[in-house]
Amino acid sequence: MYSSADREAAVGVFDSGVGGLTVAREIMRQTPNEHIVYFGDTARIPYGSKSKDTVTRYAEQIIRFLETQHVKAIVIACNTASAYALETVSKEFPIPIIGVIEPGSRAAVETTKNGKIGVIGTEGTISSGMYSSFIHHLDPEIEVIGIPCPLFVPLVEEGWTKDSITREVASRYLASLKDTGIDTLILGCTHYPLLRSLLIELMGDSVTLVNPAYETALELKKLLSSRGLGNPGIKTDEKEPYRFFVSDTAQKFKAFANSILPYDIETIKKINIEEY
Amino acid sequence: MYSSADREAAVGVFDSGVGGLTVAREIMRQTPNEHIVYFGDTARIPYGSKSKDTVTRYAEQIIRFLETQHVKAIVIACNTASAYALETVSKEFPIPIIGVIEPGSRAAVETTKNGKIGVIGTEGTISSGMYSSFIHHLDPEIEVIGIPCPLFVPLVEEGWTKDSITREVASRYLASLKDTGIDTLILGCTHYPLLRSLLIELMGDSVTLVNPAYETALELKKLLSSRGLGNPGIKTDEKEPYRFFVSDTAQKFKAFANSILPYDIETIKKINIEEY
Repeated sequence: MYSSADREAAVGVFDSGVGGLTVAREIMRQTPNEHIVYFGDTARIPYGSKSKDTVTRYAEQIIRFLETQHVKAIVIACNTASAYALETVSKEFPIPIIGVIEPGSRAAVETTKNGKIGVIGTEGTISSGMYSSFIHHLDPEIEVIGIPCPLFVPLVEEGWTKDSITREVASRYLASLKDTGIDTLILGCTHYPLLRSLLIELMGDSVTLVNPAYETALELKKLLSSRGLGNPGIKTDEKEPYRFFVSDTAQKFKAFANSILPYDIETIKKINIEEY
Repeated sequence: MYSSADREAAVGVFDSGVGGLTVAREIMRQTPNEHIVYFGDTARIPYGSKSKDTVTRYAEQIIRFLETQHVKAIVIACNTASAYALETVSKEFPIPIIGVIEPGSRAAVETTKNGKIGVIGTEGTISSGMYSSFIHHLDPEIEVIGIPCPLFVPLVEEGWTKDSITREVASRYLASLKDTGIDTLILGCTHYPLLRSLLIELMGDSVTLVNPAYETALELKKLLSSRGLGNPGIKTDEKEPYRFFVSDTAQKFKAFANSILPYDIETIKKINIEEY
């Protein structure tokens, strides 16, 4: 059904900025043969404060751009864009597209034993109830407790992931969550896996952390395999297996990317996303 | 030279989001007769990570929008937009336009006795060197020490202005600045006046804080008076002396605005700024 050119095509991954790199990193780990074209919409970050219409329009533009890069599948590595745009763009575009909300929610529902799931994320993710509505779609009996943690992203971007200040902020955010008796906690923001060890320590052994970045990479692996689209690892003409594009100045993106990816990025291309 | 209609026209004030409200607040205090049309570019915040061309294009669109509101003068209540766009838009538009960098820098140069001025701001403001280049334009002998404080904006937006965590973050950011022997410190971000008392306490009596929001309101007052444009306080048809516009969802804007303005905002209108 698919030609070898299709199988050797890259996977498109996009986010409003650098956060989705934690998803790209998991894809590199789970499917090391796959090429990746990453797009970070740094000119229009953050998506969390924007309307559904606006975010959907952005996602459509980015997918049109990724199509010019001949990708074979697309991962929306952004919670807001997954919640707002996935349904619409899945109908509009013929290419298979997956988001981070569904794999994360599904894993949490499979993990919880007492039916109490916590979700931490940005103000926008929590107030939109995107995780709880998908979890309730899977199992309406489950109790979902969402806590916004707006300082986590700037703390991670400051590089203070193992810092006493971050610990104090996290203790405060998580205090009310610990009292609720949840046994499963979704890291509902792509930056949060970088706080994983701190969160594990603060929440204790009785709570299992669910990382949607990891679950999404697994879902992509299954999708590619079920459609015969997995890259067999044949040599291609591609010089770089991972290519990075942004919509505005690349400097900060590069520094952050190099701090979390397993290798140093050489080039990042700036494109005018409004043209797509 | 100016008709009474001109004198009764509003002052346009804009920022990438809510931060410029500290400038609007100073204008309300310094020139209580003046009407204000405020625009917060919440759809495209933050400006700090965007290029000069992009920010200039945004400023041009906003000024075209403010012209439709018949404003008599415009205040760019945003550090990045002041630094990147003021020179260009001042040439392009006939209306008087002032920014926050020049009044803040001028006040700091007049204040310092030992010729050592500190500047705190976002990553974008500090790395662009916008304050130091204007200060050096006024006096090339002055030493300017800039320190980025990227967590201050999210801490202020979290409402933690008098919090032990904010104190610890501020102590860390300001530690190296205290050793430099500065006698003047510019609050180079529109959110920072909300941390004023904490910053005064941490920096001690030997350092004078300069608030560009306050200096800009004074400059506007002088400008209006010198051009005979000050509103004499004649009754107008305007129902609301202060009107607020944003480019995307207004909810968070409203909550923050109500926490810092001397009265509660009733209505905030969302407009499509890309159309201007």
